[in-house]
Amino acid sequence: MDRQDIIDTAHEMADAARAAILPYFRVRGLAAENKLSGGFDPVTVADRAGEAAMRAVLARRRPEDGVLGEELGAIAGTSGLTWVLDPIDGTRGFISGTPTWGVLVAVSDDTGPVYGIIDQPYIGERFAGGFGAASVRGPLGEATLQTSTVTSLAEAKLFTTFPEVGAERDRQGFGAVADRVRLVRYGMDCYGYALVALGQADLVIEAGLNAYDIQGPMAVIAAAGGIVTDWSGGPVHMGGKAVAAANETLHARALELLKPYA
Amino acid sequence: MDRQDIIDTAHEMADAARAAILPYFRVRGLAAENKLSGGFDPVTVADRAGEAAMRAVLARRRPEDGVLGEELGAIAGTSGLTWVLDPIDGTRGFISGTPTWGVLVAVSDDTGPVYGIIDQPYIGERFAGGFGAASVRGPLGEATLQTSTVTSLAEAKLFTTFPEVGAERDRQGFGAVADRVRLVRYGMDCYGYALVALGQADLVIEAGLNAYDIQGPMAVIAAAGGIVTDWSGGPVHMGGKAVAAANETLHARALELLKPYA
Repeated sequence: MDRQDIIDTAHEMADAARAAILPYFRVRGLAAENKLSGGFDPVTVADRAGEAAMRAVLARRRPEDGVLGEELGAIAGTSGLTWVLDPIDGTRGFISGTPTWGVLVAVSDDTGPVYGIIDQPYIGERFAGGFGAASVRGPLGEATLQTSTVTSLAEAKLFTTFPEVGAERDRQGFGAVADRVRLVRYGMDCYGYALVALGQADLVIEAGLNAYDIQGPMAVIAAAGGIVTDWSGGPVHMGGKAVAAANETLHARALELLKPYA
Repeated sequence: MDRQDIIDTAHEMADAARAAILPYFRVRGLAAENKLSGGFDPVTVADRAGEAAMRAVLARRRPEDGVLGEELGAIAGTSGLTWVLDPIDGTRGFISGTPTWGVLVAVSDDTGPVYGIIDQPYIGERFAGGFGAASVRGPLGEATLQTSTVTSLAEAKLFTTFPEVGAERDRQGFGAVADRVRLVRYGMDCYGYALVALGQADLVIEAGLNAYDIQGPMAVIAAAGGIVTDWSGGPVHMGGKAVAAANETLHARALELLKPYA
């Protein structure tokens, strides 16, 4: 596995997505199609342009790898590596002008993601992790990512995107942890995971995730010292209910409360 | 009233707050004191440093004006103008590393705010409005602010910070509107008001506000074409329950649902 080529490819893909998506951000009257019957799951021309731009980089640099993207489907590869892409994680936030949606890039082998990126194009901020290193580059320069040392739920800061979390039982599981923590915050989409990698938040708990929602964050958090699993402690890189924690002790404490709802 | 001096003073204050606060943002182990018994209302050295920096600018440039700040109290003036300051609106977000807290600056006469600023130091983004003009300056350059033309609740994007909103009756009032809109988003603190001024969000509904939470946003939104009142349509610049809307039609539609809970 040529690690440097994987890293360079991932960053070139994130650069390409930034360039493709940013011209649509905060444009007045951007049309959002609804992907969901009985709800509102928007997709825009920006999502599709971002994913197409990333796929073009991949086809040129690493045509032997597979790809799974939110908008444009899956293509099997021959290398044993698959790129898992979400051009805009948080399209609801994107169409509302918030600065906390992100471009998610991950590359995985059979065991899960080995390298990942969470990129916020408007702020110009990129969180990247894998192969034993994790860093952020943004308005304040570049820094190493390191998760927090908070091990007590009573001191923990917990994020999720929607107060409904998922089905009613998912909300109850989230609530079991939320009732014990210091602070609960909402609405950050993938940015909540970046905050765990930064050591600023301690837990993210979500449900109903797809592989492309979680693989980028998983790689970044793992490389920063944290841990991301499903609500029973098993692998979550194919999606489902996720708990991201700053460290193993805090993870175990959250898991104890989540397991009945897993 | 020397409008240009007021505008220049407001921006110099926001610059000073940025410089004072940003060194504390995302610093590991920043201590937060709790201002609230039976809850968690954090205040940090960054809040106090930010307000002190703004007050120093004011004392030098316009000593005749009054000042009311969240952290350091009120001083009466002799000019008929009062500066209303919140050094960090969204301290919970600040101590969690989110990029959606803000420095709020407003200057008001007897009728309410005449000029205001919402500044996001980490992104380097500033929303300002009053005296017939409203603009944003940030990562994508400078632009005029103009609220949206969405007049139907069914098309509207609604923001609030906490799903609890306030007391149970406040939450019910919020819910009466939330049930009718296209999209509800949480967690943005003062940034939700900036999104209304940008034309990206259409409504913000909150309760339990103080004068310093709302006067900066009020001035910016009013100058961008929107309207901010309390839940019965009266003035809200001294705080309370606020509804910010992109235009009068949408405001009237939200108000009809909120009035029973005002």
